[in-house]
Amino acid sequence: MKGYIADKLESFKQINKNRARLLIHCADQPGIVAAVSQFLYEHDANIIESNQYSTDPHGGEFFIRIEFEIPDLKENADKLEADFQPISEKFQMDANFTFVDQVKKMAIFVSKEPHCLLELLWEWQSGDLLAEISMVISNHETSRELVEPLGIPYYYIPANKDIREEVEAKQIRLLQENDIDVIVLARYMQILTPNFVETFKNQIINIHHSFLPAFIGAKPYERAYDRGVKLIGATSHFVTNDLDEGPIIEQDISRVDHRDNVEAMKKIGQSVERSVLARAVKWHLEDRIIVHGNKTIVF
Amino acid sequence: MKGYIADKLESFKQINKNRARLLIHCADQPGIVAAVSQFLYEHDANIIESNQYSTDPHGGEFFIRIEFEIPDLKENADKLEADFQPISEKFQMDANFTFVDQVKKMAIFVSKEPHCLLELLWEWQSGDLLAEISMVISNHETSRELVEPLGIPYYYIPANKDIREEVEAKQIRLLQENDIDVIVLARYMQILTPNFVETFKNQIINIHHSFLPAFIGAKPYERAYDRGVKLIGATSHFVTNDLDEGPIIEQDISRVDHRDNVEAMKKIGQSVERSVLARAVKWHLEDRIIVHGNKTIVF
Amino acid sequence: MKGYIADKLESFKQINKNRARLLIHCADQPGIVAAVSQFLYEHDANIIESNQYSTDPHGGEFFIRIEFEIPDLKENADKLEADFQPISEKFQMDANFTFVDQVKKMAIFVSKEPHCLLELLWEWQSGDLLAEISMVISNHETSRELVEPLGIPYYYIPANKDIREEVEAKQIRLLQENDIDVIVLARYMQILTPNFVETFKNQIINIHHSFLPAFIGAKPYERAYDRGVKLIGATSHFVTNDLDEGPIIEQDISRVDHRDNVEAMKKIGQSVERSVLARAVKWHLEDRIIVHGNKTIVF
Amino acid sequence: MKGYIADKLESFKQINKNRARLLIHCADQPGIVAAVSQFLYEHDANIIESNQYSTDPHGGEFFIRIEFEIPDLKENADKLEADFQPISEKFQMDANFTFVDQVKKMAIFVSKEPHCLLELLWEWQSGDLLAEISMVISNHETSRELVEPLGIPYYYIPANKDIREEVEAKQIRLLQENDIDVIVLARYMQILTPNFVETFKNQIINIHHSFLPAFIGAKPYERAYDRGVKLIGATSHFVTNDLDEGPIIEQDISRVDHRDNVEAMKKIGQSVERSVLARAVKWHLEDRIIVHGNKTIVF
Repeated sequence: MKGYIADKLESFKQINKNRARLLIHCADQPGIVAAVSQFLYEHDANIIESNQYSTDPHGGEFFIRIEFEIPDLKENADKLEADFQPISEKFQMDANFTFVDQVKKMAIFVSKEPHCLLELLWEWQSGDLLAEISMVISNHETSRELVEPLGIPYYYIPANKDIREEVEAKQIRLLQENDIDVIVLARYMQILTPNFVETFKNQIINIHHSFLPAFIGAKPYERAYDRGVKLIGATSHFVTNDLDEGPIIEQDISRVDHRDNVEAMKKIGQSVERSVLARAVKWHLEDRIIVHGNKTIVF
Repeated sequence: MKGYIADKLESFKQINKNRARLLIHCADQPGIVAAVSQFLYEHDANIIESNQYSTDPHGGEFFIRIEFEIPDLKENADKLEADFQPISEKFQMDANFTFVDQVKKMAIFVSKEPHCLLELLWEWQSGDLLAEISMVISNHETSRELVEPLGIPYYYIPANKDIREEVEAKQIRLLQENDIDVIVLARYMQILTPNFVETFKNQIINIHHSFLPAFIGAKPYERAYDRGVKLIGATSHFVTNDLDEGPIIEQDISRVDHRDNVEAMKKIGQSVERSVLARAVKWHLEDRIIVHGNKTIVF
Repeated sequence: MKGYIADKLESFKQINKNRARLLIHCADQPGIVAAVSQFLYEHDANIIESNQYSTDPHGGEFFIRIEFEIPDLKENADKLEADFQPISEKFQMDANFTFVDQVKKMAIFVSKEPHCLLELLWEWQSGDLLAEISMVISNHETSRELVEPLGIPYYYIPANKDIREEVEAKQIRLLQENDIDVIVLARYMQILTPNFVETFKNQIINIHHSFLPAFIGAKPYERAYDRGVKLIGATSHFVTNDLDEGPIIEQDISRVDHRDNVEAMKKIGQSVERSVLARAVKWHLEDRIIVHGNKTIVF
Repeated sequence: MKGYIADKLESFKQINKNRARLLIHCADQPGIVAAVSQFLYEHDANIIESNQYSTDPHGGEFFIRIEFEIPDLKENADKLEADFQPISEKFQMDANFTFVDQVKKMAIFVSKEPHCLLELLWEWQSGDLLAEISMVISNHETSRELVEPLGIPYYYIPANKDIREEVEAKQIRLLQENDIDVIVLARYMQILTPNFVETFKNQIINIHHSFLPAFIGAKPYERAYDRGVKLIGATSHFVTNDLDEGPIIEQDISRVDHRDNVEAMKKIGQSVERSVLARAVKWHLEDRIIVHGNKTIVF
C-alpha cells in the first residue's frame, strides 16, 4: 500500500480508537432498548448513532445498530463483551461488537472490465473507502497496471469452468492466508462454487449489471436492449448459491431511450454499476448491513 | 363532458386548426429528409418540431415525426395527403398524417383502485391531457362518483374469467359505437382475450405496477417485498397477447427500504404508476410514439 | 366531510387509539436514551419506531422521536405525561407527547392554481393524509366546486395588499374558532404579515415553486427560464417572516431542457410541487419534523 | 500520452475519418431544412443524427445539428464548405462544419481537489472522452503523480490574486503554443481575468459545486448546510466574466438530510460534480452544445 494511503488509514484508526459498534438481532420483546441503553450508559458510552427496526412491532424480529465511543476502549473491549453476555442471553440475542479501528481486509476480484475496480481504488485513495485492500485477483492481466502502482499485490489466476475447483483452491488459500474479511466481485465474470460461497458466507459482495430480479444471468444489457426497456440498472448483493438471487444491498437505475444501443447502454450502465457497488461496499465496511433471510436491513 | 372542460378542448382545437403531424417509417436510404422537407416547403408548411431516428445509419430503419402548420389546413388536408403519395411510394414509406384538432376519443378501464383514473381525470380537467374521454368502463361501482360529476358516462360491467367473452362483446360494442381511438387500462385487473387485443392493436395502453420485465403478472408489490428489492417501479406499455410483454412506452421507479412493507410499497408505487401512465398517455395523444417490433420510439 | 372519508378517519383513530409519539429535544448528555427507554419499558410501551439524531455527539443537541403503543392509553395519558416530568426536568428536555388518534385540524389556503390543493384532497380521500380538513380559504372562487362536494367549507375572502390586515383578521378568527393546528399554503399567492406568522408559529407550511434558495420571491419559473437552468424544483418550508427563508422541509427537482419554455416549465413544475408539498404535510401530520433554528430534522 | 490511449484515439479517428457535423444558427424561415437536406443529399451524405430546435416557430431563432458521413471526406472537405457558402448566405446562417477525426485539444486546470480531474482522466483512459489531453495546469503539486504516469505534461504554476496577470500570461502562452481548443476548470479555485476569458470565449468549461443560481461564489456546501437544504447539486457552465453566471450546460443534484454535515455534503457532492462535469465536457467534444445568449442548446 502506498505511503499516503497507509497514512490516511493510520490516521483513521487513531481517530476512531475508542469507537465501536454493536449490532443486535433478536425477537422483538419489551425492554430490549432499555437494557441495552442502560448497559451503554453504565459503561460510559457516548452514543454516536443509533438505528433500530422491527419487522413487526407486535411479535416480529428486532434489529439495532448502535455506534458509540467508550474511553480507553482498547483496554476495556474484552470486559465490555463479557459484561454484555447476560443481556445477550436474557433476550436470546444474536449480538456482535465490532471495533472501528480494526479495519476490514478486502480482496477485489475482477475480470476484464475495470470500471468498478477503478471506482473502488479511487474511493480508497481518497480516504472514503476505509479498508485494507490486501489484493486484487483477476483471470486477466489487463488491470495489473492499475493496481500495482498503488502497492496492492495483483494475482493473475486464469480461470474457466473446467478448472474451477483448482482455481478456487488457489484463491481460497490466498484469501485465508491474508485473513480476508470481505470479497468484492467487481465485475468478476466467473461463477463461484457452493464450497467457495459457503466458505465466505455473507462476506462476498457482487455487482450485477441489471436491476434484479430483471435480467438475471448473462448479457443483461443485450436483453434489456431486446426488451426495449426505458431504464437500465445495477444491483449489488451478497452472493449465495442461487445465481443473482442473494440478499440485495443496493440498486439504482439510469434512463435510456430508443437511441441507445447495447454499447450505449453499457457505457451508461457502467456509471450506475460503479456508484451502486461503491455504496454497498462502504455500508458493509461500516457494519451497516444486517442480512435477514434473503433480505438486507441497511442502517 | 362538463362545460369548462369542453371549452378548453374547443379552444385547443381552434388554436391548432392548422396544425398536423407526419409520421414516417421506412428503410433508411439517401434523400428521404430532402424529399420530405422539400415537400413541406412547397406546401408552405411551418415546421414546429421535427425528430428523426435511424436504427442504423448504414442500412437500418428510418423514423421521422414532423409537426407543422399549414395555412387553411382544413381545406388542404386531402390535397396534402394526395400530393405526398408519390414520395411515400418512391421510398416505400409507412406514412401517416394526423390533424391535431381531431382529438382522440378515449375510454378508460378501471377496477377498484382509482389512483390512475384520478390522475388522468385531473390532467384532463387541467387541460393537459387533450382527448375526449368518452367513457369509463369498470367491473366495480366504486369509481362512479368520481366520473359522472365530470359528465363522463360510467359503464359498470361486472367481469370475471368465466364470462370474459360476453363481457368483452359488450365492451367492444360500446367502444366501436363511440369510435374510440385509445383504450387506457388504468389498473384494470382483468385479462383481455386475443380477440379484444387484436381488435384494438397498438391502441391499448396499460400500466403495470413493476419495472418490467421484473415481476410480470400478479402481485408485483408482494413479490418485490419478498425479494427485498431497494427500488419499486411501474411500466406503461401497449397491450399485446403476451401478458406484460408488449412494447414499453415509459418506466420509472421510486426508492424503498427495509422499513417499507407491502402496504407502504403500494402507496409509494401508486405515485409512480400515476405519473408513468399519464406521461405515456399524453405522448400517445400527441402521436409521439411509434411501435417498432416489440419496442417503442418515443419522439 | 363526506361519509366515506369520515369513516376512514374514524377507523384510523380506532386502530391507533393506544398509539402515541414522544418528541424530545435537549442538550446531548449521557443517559438520555437509557432513561427514556426505561421509562417506556416500565409503562408497558411497545416501541413501534424510534429515530434519534445528535448534531454533534460530543456536546451537541440531541433529538429523538419515539412512536409507541401503551395499553389503555386514553385512561393513562395524563399519568404518562406526569410520570415523565422528572425525566424531562432532569435532562432539561423540550419534550412533547402527541396522541395519534387526535388527528390534526387543517386549513388549506389557495389562490387560483388548484394543483396542490387537488393533490392534498386526493391524498385525503384516499386515506393517506390523515387530518381533518376543516376548511379551504381562498382569495378566488375558482376552487369552490372542487372543495364543497367533499363536504369541506370553502371561504372566499378576497385579498390584496391594501386590505391585508382586515383579511387576516377574518382568517385568524376562522382559524381560531375551528382550533386549526396546521395551515397549508397550497399556492396561496398573498404575503402574510408578521402578526399572522407569529400567531401560527411552525404551523404554516408553504410550497415555493423553486429549489430554494434559488429564485426566492416572485415568478421563479420565468427567472429559471431566463437563467437557462437545466433543473427546476420545488421547496416546502415552514413560513417565517423572511420571505421564502423559513426552515426547509422537503425539496425535489425535475429535468428541463432548452425546448421547455416558461409554460412547459410550469406544467413540469406542478408535478414536483404537488409531490413535495404532499410529502411535507404528511410528515408534519405524523409529527416527524422538528424545527431546530432555521433547519428541520425530519425523522 | 500513453500508448494504449493513443491507440484508442487513433482507431477512433480512423473509424470516423468520413464523419462530419454541421451546426447552424439563423433566423427561423421557410425552406432551411429543405435546402440543407437537399445539399447533403447531393453530396452523398448519409445522415447519422439530426436535431433541430426553434425558439419560436413563428419568427424565432433556428438551430440544427446534423452529423453525417460523406465518402472520401478528407478530399472533399474544402469543396463541401465552399459549396455550402451560397446556402449559408441566402439564409444568413451562422454555419459551422466540424470534422470528427480532428479531435479537440484539451487542457485541464485543477487546484487541490482531484476528483473531477480523476473522473476526466478515467473517462479518457476508457476511450469515452475523445480528446487529446495536452496538459494539466495546477496551482498545486498534489495531482502531478496522477497525471504524469499517463504521459500528460503537468505544469505547476503557483497562483494567487496578486500575481494573476503574470500567471495568466504563462498559462495563455502554454495554451496557445499547444493550440488548445477546450479548457476545463476541474475545480480550479482561481478567478480568471476578463482578458483570459475573452481569449478563450465559449471554450472554457467550469464546474461549480452548487445548483446555480443558488450559492453563487465561495463555499457553497457550507452555505447549503447553513440554509438547511435537502438537495445539493453541481452545475457545469461556460465561463464568462460574471462569476458563475455563464451559460449552463448541465446540472444535477443529490439528496441530503439533517444527518449530513458539511463534510458529508462535500463527499456526496463530489460524486455529482464528477458526473455533471464529465457529461458537459463530452457534449462539448461532440459539438452538441450551441451557446445562445446566456443559455445553451444541448442537442
